[in-house]
Amino acid sequence: MSGLQALIQDLVIANRILAREDVVDAYGHVSVRHPDNPHRFLIARSLAPLDLDGAPVREDGHKLYLERFIHAAIFAARPDVMAVVHAHAEDTLPFGIAPATKLRPVIHAGSFIGGEVPVWDIADRFGDTNLLVTNIEQARDLASCLGPHNVALMRGHGFASAARSLIEVVRMSVYLPRNARALMRAKQLGGEVKYLSEGEIAARNRGYSPYSTETWRTWEYWATKAGCGHLLTRPDDPPNS
Amino acid sequence: MSGLQALIQDLVIANRILAREDVVDAYGHVSVRHPDNPHRFLIARSLAPLDLDGAPVREDGHKLYLERFIHAAIFAARPDVMAVVHAHAEDTLPFGIAPATKLRPVIHAGSFIGGEVPVWDIADRFGDTNLLVTNIEQARDLASCLGPHNVALMRGHGFASAARSLIEVVRMSVYLPRNARALMRAKQLGGEVKYLSEGEIAARNRGYSPYSTETWRTWEYWATKAGCGHLLTRPDDPPNS
Amino acid sequence: MSGLQALIQDLVIANRILAREDVVDAYGHVSVRHPDNPHRFLIARSLAPLDLDGAPVREDGHKLYLERFIHAAIFAARPDVMAVVHAHAEDTLPFGIAPATKLRPVIHAGSFIGGEVPVWDIADRFGDTNLLVTNIEQARDLASCLGPHNVALMRGHGFASAARSLIEVVRMSVYLPRNARALMRAKQLGGEVKYLSEGEIAARNRGYSPYSTETWRTWEYWATKAGCGHLLTRPDDPPNS
Amino acid sequence: MSGLQALIQDLVIANRILAREDVVDAYGHVSVRHPDNPHRFLIARSLAPLDLDGAPVREDGHKLYLERFIHAAIFAARPDVMAVVHAHAEDTLPFGIAPATKLRPVIHAGSFIGGEVPVWDIADRFGDTNLLVTNIEQARDLASCLGPHNVALMRGHGFASAARSLIEVVRMSVYLPRNARALMRAKQLGGEVKYLSEGEIAARNRGYSPYSTETWRTWEYWATKAGCGHLLTRPDDPPNS
Repeated sequence: MSGLQALIQDLVIANRILAREDVVDAYGHVSVRHPDNPHRFLIARSLAPLDLDGAPVREDGHKLYLERFIHAAIFAARPDVMAVVHAHAEDTLPFGIAPATKLRPVIHAGSFIGGEVPVWDIADRFGDTNLLVTNIEQARDLASCLGPHNVALMRGHGFASAARSLIEVVRMSVYLPRNARALMRAKQLGGEVKYLSEGEIAARNRGYSPYSTETWRTWEYWATKAGCGHLLTRPDDPPNS
Repeated sequence: MSGLQALIQDLVIANRILAREDVVDAYGHVSVRHPDNPHRFLIARSLAPLDLDGAPVREDGHKLYLERFIHAAIFAARPDVMAVVHAHAEDTLPFGIAPATKLRPVIHAGSFIGGEVPVWDIADRFGDTNLLVTNIEQARDLASCLGPHNVALMRGHGFASAARSLIEVVRMSVYLPRNARALMRAKQLGGEVKYLSEGEIAARNRGYSPYSTETWRTWEYWATKAGCGHLLTRPDDPPNS
Repeated sequence: MSGLQALIQDLVIANRILAREDVVDAYGHVSVRHPDNPHRFLIARSLAPLDLDGAPVREDGHKLYLERFIHAAIFAARPDVMAVVHAHAEDTLPFGIAPATKLRPVIHAGSFIGGEVPVWDIADRFGDTNLLVTNIEQARDLASCLGPHNVALMRGHGFASAARSLIEVVRMSVYLPRNARALMRAKQLGGEVKYLSEGEIAARNRGYSPYSTETWRTWEYWATKAGCGHLLTRPDDPPNS
Repeated sequence: MSGLQALIQDLVIANRILAREDVVDAYGHVSVRHPDNPHRFLIARSLAPLDLDGAPVREDGHKLYLERFIHAAIFAARPDVMAVVHAHAEDTLPFGIAPATKLRPVIHAGSFIGGEVPVWDIADRFGDTNLLVTNIEQARDLASCLGPHNVALMRGHGFASAARSLIEVVRMSVYLPRNARALMRAKQLGGEVKYLSEGEIAARNRGYSPYSTETWRTWEYWATKAGCGHLLTRPDDPPNS
């Protein structure tokens, strides 16, 4: 199988995992930078995750997603980013709506979201909109709010996450709402909340490798749960596993 | 397929989506105004969403739903309304029971509920009842509380929602409890809660079209999830898509 | 089909509904008074709802449930009661553990639990136990706490509910945790909580009939969801429907 | 069937139950001490619960779980312990993150966690780590925090539980998050929270027997729900049932 073909299969897996784990519904998407041309990216084109065929986006008229602007602007602003997710996962929303409480890692698997998760409010620069990112200027503003971080919350809308690989962006997006729930409940219990320290976030990040046994295990587990374990491909003899 | 037949199929889809998305159970319903006679409306007749056959209501005695009064009074009071839902979705209930906290849009998909969601308390005019709307007088009182709005909460009971199309009323009814959850959790986090502004609600509303790509995508996604994707019909060449 | 046989089928349906609606797990049960001998009652004998066979309890040694004491004592103390449920439904537990907040009806379908739900704490009279009701003396104390009410919470354990029919006791037991959730969330919203008034509870109760169209609709809906719609029997020409 | 073979089947059942009841995901595990050699233990080796084959751990290189250190250190420190679970169950996390609120039994089935559940914070002795237990020294520190208790929470990570049998450790691990939820909600209701007394915890513990009718009923119920009821084996004529 060619590298491109394997990547497209991974994109299919990624979208199905995000649907199965309740991160995306009709409106969330995952995209990946083209392996041969860093100025292009691939995004699942189907109308809904249920009907995914993994084909790359083609410019065929009115069926293009508005959300493509979000992905495009992040890939443009961040050469280090290889994969992007935009979704509406329910338990991330309160932190955009009540932004006085910062969403920060409290569980180890939440460390990948990084020490700071900025909140982007489209109204700050664009006033009264329908809250959707409908042009590249708005998307660039979102990307600029994201800056060097891994996740930006979008007030009243959802989030955008960016990472070095599909596996990493999926993992981050699945653990983002779980980390949000753990933090909400810890705050309800009251008393001091122990966030991950900067050193802990850095330690965990240093150990990341997309084909490490630990990372692969989750990917394989989620893909199997999502009914597409048969699509899994893994490079032989991964050097850093 | 005739327009009436297509509408009946849409009514079946609507009821199944509402059941699949946990908006209705044994007692919730969706109705639609008759396309040829604005003085009649159609409502799913089956005893439970699981057994839906999509046939129109016939006056055949004791099996008629009490809830028909709610639908009738809203269609009568609001010539602009083409579809009505009455349901008990669990996460809308707290806002009727503890009405000091207003249910207002905090997420973009919640914008369709409108800037104000009145709470109707049957006890205000009818004293001690079983909380069901059992006659047209009570239903008219509810419709009058709804006024020009899109949704009215019914204290200790559920809600009634009204819209320009089946697709819109289903979408509003599915996002109503989600918006309610996001607001409840945002309030628990504490600090300022950022509601959608009136301008944002208006902007989103202006962009609405039942057959736009964006609206259709959710309808198709939900119908597929609910196991009735094969019943979908879409007008050819929608003018405003 | 004989009356007894129909009742046993209803008992099977009741147990399956309670399992499907997450009211009972391995430990919850429903029982019904014998139609021909008011001094006996029938209880599902299987080890777990999944393996229900609907056979009546036989005294065959060590496999008898401890929980039989609860059912026996309530049937003995309350000649008006025809069916009993004992279960551990999770969302009822907080109200037994933090008894300063009274569990009272806030939603119309919660009205059947009645205006007052006493909390029984086994420690009050029996000191340090394993919290299970292991003899008839403890069960009689619980029945005495229940008194003329429909539901008693058991601190750290669950609840017991009693009603005039299987259909009613199932309905009450399914709506008990839903009413509990609505009340918990309404309290979290803050401000005044509007409970059902005594008059509303009485009005709803007056309208109850086990074979009314409204009551039957839920029973049929839940039985179908629980996969035993084919076991449904309904008396012909119910006099009070 | 030999004792070892039966134990391996029980290990398979245990892992599947923990997956079905949402206690473990890709990363949780259950282990059991070897029946013939107390210095060895068996742990499910598959990459994910979905692919369990129940084979004992073999030292075959890079596929060994890091988590094996946790199990090894607890078996070494606690000769009375026959089975260990390490998992990340979501509703236990808040009590490790906001440790001012102690996780203590409030429901009878939660009594097995014991009167005190210590919280282990890896940072206390090892500073900034990735929060995983990656060597035997860290694991021994966790085991020392666990001390004579049944469960230790691991801050930002999950929990480790230890018991006298597979059945007991599974039961404890399933009820741990349920007890956590009941306590969280009881605290939200406000007022006095009634914890199980020391005497109640002791009374319940005294009555424990792995093959008692009551204990077996849950095991059988959960195994059936998890789709492996056919693997159940039960010693004939259990002496203390």
